[in-house]
Amino acid sequence: MDSKAKSTNVTWHDTVITKEDREKKNNHKGIVLWLTGLSGCGKSTVATCLQEKLFNQDIQAYILDGDNIRHGLNGDLGFSPEDREENIRRIGEVAHLFAQAGMIAITSFISPYRKDRDRARKLNQDGEFIEVFVKAPLDVCEDRDPKGLYKKAREGVIKEFTGISAPYEEPENPEILLETDKLSVEESADKILDYLKAQGVIG
Amino acid sequence: MDSKAKSTNVTWHDTVITKEDREKKNNHKGIVLWLTGLSGCGKSTVATCLQEKLFNQDIQAYILDGDNIRHGLNGDLGFSPEDREENIRRIGEVAHLFAQAGMIAITSFISPYRKDRDRARKLNQDGEFIEVFVKAPLDVCEDRDPKGLYKKAREGVIKEFTGISAPYEEPENPEILLETDKLSVEESADKILDYLKAQGVIG
Repeated sequence: MDSKAKSTNVTWHDTVITKEDREKKNNHKGIVLWLTGLSGCGKSTVATCLQEKLFNQDIQAYILDGDNIRHGLNGDLGFSPEDREENIRRIGEVAHLFAQAGMIAITSFISPYRKDRDRARKLNQDGEFIEVFVKAPLDVCEDRDPKGLYKKAREGVIKEFTGISAPYEEPENPEILLETDKLSVEESADKILDYLKAQGVIG
Repeated sequence: MDSKAKSTNVTWHDTVITKEDREKKNNHKGIVLWLTGLSGCGKSTVATCLQEKLFNQDIQAYILDGDNIRHGLNGDLGFSPEDREENIRRIGEVAHLFAQAGMIAITSFISPYRKDRDRARKLNQDGEFIEVFVKAPLDVCEDRDPKGLYKKAREGVIKEFTGISAPYEEPENPEILLETDKLSVEESADKILDYLKAQGVIG
């Protein structure tokens, strides 16, 4: 690169594509939609339904969940308190990157600790982190037990299981509350969509 | 959720949005474009120019680089050999996630070790990881020294600096070779675009 090319470099560096540029092009904002709740509360189901609805409206959205995080990025982490905290820290950072890239990042993790969720929130601007408390009574979640985890927790095979032998700290002021023992999956997803529209995240 | 809602759940889980769905909607493929080369070789400049050109063609692309990774996701990592390896491992995983989400993930890191780059490659399907060797002679890079790092490395202030006091393992068979002492920034970006078109990654 000669000196002319060098000055071109400077120009290129000055014309970085911003988050706002992406949002204008995509016609929606880039945000983090943080689903939290007990195992079996319906996080994944609601996330999947919501993602499909967003996709059908030409909105860029992507789910981060155990399936694509636990064996990949966080495959080096176990279930010690430190590793659980680091698990959520990294997910918060990756979700933030997706939002910066102009997408709606939907995270679907129990994320039982307020401190960890608040740290993820603080990476983002006001209004760009939306906490969704996916709530169902413990006995309902345990009755559903889609992965047989509650059974194993009751038998002591799984230690420190959220809701049974480890705490779940409920969100004190979530942007959205979904009571999935009262709402259907579609009603839950639609409640999120309505919120996103009301906030101007999507058109 | 009653039994009716439960059977709805199953349906939703069956209609997960796939990478192929996203590619069809976006009208381009989701891939990882892995830029590797010495400090000062022009990775960031080419990445920034390329990203702008892609954006102007309505292509979803996002740069992962030191600015958005080192202080965020990898803020817990130092510069020990283990931490450098873990740095690249995580970047490979995140780039893979962006590709799964239908985007062109452009990574811009020295990534001096073949083993680390190959691990990142293996996360992706054939043709979905494109290694770009951004090549300039060491003396050219050192003369540019945009961040003053070579000076510090020569003074011994920075230890184990790639090209000076730590090795750079050149790609043996990169998909794209950019000799940035011979090509301008725009010519470099255009060479990548031409490759992406020839491979059917973009239209």
